[in-house]
Amino acid sequence: MKYSVIVIGDELLIGQVTDTNSGWIARHLSPFGWEASNFIVISDDRDEIISSVNDALAKVDIVLVTGGLGPTKDDITKSALCEYFGGEMVYDEETASNVLDVVNKRHIKMNEYTRLQAMVPTSCKVVQNRVGTAPIMWFEKDGKVLVSMPGVPHEMQTMMQMSVIPLLLKHFYSDNYCITHKTFIVRGIIESELAMRLDEFEKHLPTNLHLAYLPQGGWIRLRLSGHGTDNAELDRQMSTASNDLRSQIAEYIICDEDKTLQEILGDKLLKSGLTFSTAESCTGGNIAHLITSISGSSRYFTGAVVCYDTMVKVNQLRVPQDIINEYTVVSKPVAEYMVQGVSKLMCTDCAIATTGYAGPGGGAPGKPVGTVCIAVKCKDKVISYERHFPGTRDRVISRATTEAILFLIDIID
Amino acid sequence: MKYSVIVIGDELLIGQVTDTNSGWIARHLSPFGWEASNFIVISDDRDEIISSVNDALAKVDIVLVTGGLGPTKDDITKSALCEYFGGEMVYDEETASNVLDVVNKRHIKMNEYTRLQAMVPTSCKVVQNRVGTAPIMWFEKDGKVLVSMPGVPHEMQTMMQMSVIPLLLKHFYSDNYCITHKTFIVRGIIESELAMRLDEFEKHLPTNLHLAYLPQGGWIRLRLSGHGTDNAELDRQMSTASNDLRSQIAEYIICDEDKTLQEILGDKLLKSGLTFSTAESCTGGNIAHLITSISGSSRYFTGAVVCYDTMVKVNQLRVPQDIINEYTVVSKPVAEYMVQGVSKLMCTDCAIATTGYAGPGGGAPGKPVGTVCIAVKCKDKVISYERHFPGTRDRVISRATTEAILFLIDIID
Repeated sequence: MKYSVIVIGDELLIGQVTDTNSGWIARHLSPFGWEASNFIVISDDRDEIISSVNDALAKVDIVLVTGGLGPTKDDITKSALCEYFGGEMVYDEETASNVLDVVNKRHIKMNEYTRLQAMVPTSCKVVQNRVGTAPIMWFEKDGKVLVSMPGVPHEMQTMMQMSVIPLLLKHFYSDNYCITHKTFIVRGIIESELAMRLDEFEKHLPTNLHLAYLPQGGWIRLRLSGHGTDNAELDRQMSTASNDLRSQIAEYIICDEDKTLQEILGDKLLKSGLTFSTAESCTGGNIAHLITSISGSSRYFTGAVVCYDTMVKVNQLRVPQDIINEYTVVSKPVAEYMVQGVSKLMCTDCAIATTGYAGPGGGAPGKPVGTVCIAVKCKDKVISYERHFPGTRDRVISRATTEAILFLIDIID
Repeated sequence: MKYSVIVIGDELLIGQVTDTNSGWIARHLSPFGWEASNFIVISDDRDEIISSVNDALAKVDIVLVTGGLGPTKDDITKSALCEYFGGEMVYDEETASNVLDVVNKRHIKMNEYTRLQAMVPTSCKVVQNRVGTAPIMWFEKDGKVLVSMPGVPHEMQTMMQMSVIPLLLKHFYSDNYCITHKTFIVRGIIESELAMRLDEFEKHLPTNLHLAYLPQGGWIRLRLSGHGTDNAELDRQMSTASNDLRSQIAEYIICDEDKTLQEILGDKLLKSGLTFSTAESCTGGNIAHLITSISGSSRYFTGAVVCYDTMVKVNQLRVPQDIINEYTVVSKPVAEYMVQGVSKLMCTDCAIATTGYAGPGGGAPGKPVGTVCIAVKCKDKVISYERHFPGTRDRVISRATTEAILFLIDIID
């Protein structure tokens, strides 16, 4: 099955907003073996919309349109589609009642513009948008399908998962059609090596199963997807393939669910009943920021000391000045004192410490920009590492953050 | 002048990579009044490349192509363009010598694939890529121009600014053509109100001057751009317009250079010779992370205490337990004690403190999720605020971070 994504909005063509909708759609349709033919970003312009829709329907089976459905007069997707597919705009009671529901849930007032959202072309079936006021429109022509959805990412994503993907599967396959995923979080191996190791595995996968490599910078999300109409058979295939895959790369798998590193760490800490703190020099609070981006992290994360200034390392974390003099501030011994210091100060079982040269200036003899020392502690165990990360300041900070979290995940039993 | 961007790469169509090139290009071409007709993302496929190029050249004056120029066999943009524009592939000595320069600078080894980068179509002029091995190709047809550039964002961006934009201006205008920008950082007013206030101003702008609103979540980047062939006249126009604009919204402007909030704060601290620290509860280290993302921030930023746990607020920052009991932990008095505590602990002149409910769980009677108390301190002066930010956890953290930095900028004389 081939599809196109048409993204509509003037704000995209002036570079004010970056289109993330088409990539999201691609990641969620590729598991079915469906291929994107192209993504097109166009303006809120009648002629552009009609000619792009016409071109796309000539080439592919499914056209997914996002954006241009706001209630203001700039947004003309609905009227352009009505013109293209025929019929007329009518006030739809069911849509009106859904719009009212959404408006009430949001505690906002109904106004004339919002009321207009209930006007829809007679040539479409409406898919009720449960999380926004713009109705989703399903058009069919010569066996092909065009679905027009709102451009707001969370509305598009929610409704794709809740309604549009199931409806597309039902339309093109059957009621029994099902899809399933299994994700493995993999670390300690680069993508090309992993692909080589799994070459034979991939060759022997059934054609309705598909493996995707999603490298994240320091770790890889490996996603096995399967689809079919026989649920029991699909479960059996997925289970066989998952076990096979696991046995081939067991030493690199740190989790077999689709989670972020901070979620994996959080789960491990909760399960062991351990608490955790960080002492951050070169990462400057980024580890704490990532950890606290998870709701509920206060159950295991007590806090952090960002010790940018050497005096903070000495006064707050009790790193001995003579250790700094002997080994320099970017050294494994200093990282070890930092990790001990912060876990004592914050009364935690576990801790992470980072000290390094993020660049672009700085560095020292034998310790160029990109050198980062990381120490992790879990109860009595302390391990430290020295690493060299290439790239810009942002990249060094980001890679040091990732590695530090991975090191702590490893050290917790 | 109308242009199209064609972005080539299989990795984009499976959603593994998000296209940021076209948005970057749009932001850098809009100041000339040039309009993007569309952005198209296609696969590394000969037929797709040729038909997209053909369609685009039929519609617009300039076609900018990024991607598909790697040295491996998947990347076929060069041969497809050679086929479309005619001529043959030849080994170009000047390109070969540039490729060797780049390879040497990167301390990598020349291999057979890299050597192939010096093969270019006879139908193009080569624009030497100083930051990568893939040559940039300039084709002309019927007065229209197509430029093929590498897909790696930093290579494309560097070479657009260094060579491609100046060459396009020279081609379509004259040698004297020049372009100039003036950016204002604006806060304390929402975009629609600002646009209303500047409605008359915009109406009276000379046609070669252009105002762009770039809202950033809590503040706005306002960019005035001008272009023309008479440099002195352009300077005069820009200066008149800048002064006029400044006089109309003076109270909202915090900087008249293109800087981030953390850069503006850093400049102010450096200029006043002040130092700075943060005490972060709900922002969880995000302020420290943003501040330390700037190279050289160690000159004014000493460190932070992320006091996620209430005991850290009490033990490290010396917030009295009875103040917490009386006012609750998310309160202005607690934020004020935090800001005093951290500036004392870190020996800094200035400080920021945040405490709030980032959600989605939590909150307290009269203090729903999204409530954040922020205190800022500069020498003897302490000011605190209570704010309510809507949206997701990420958004609450991000808005609290931005507001806190803005508050500190305001309080420093």
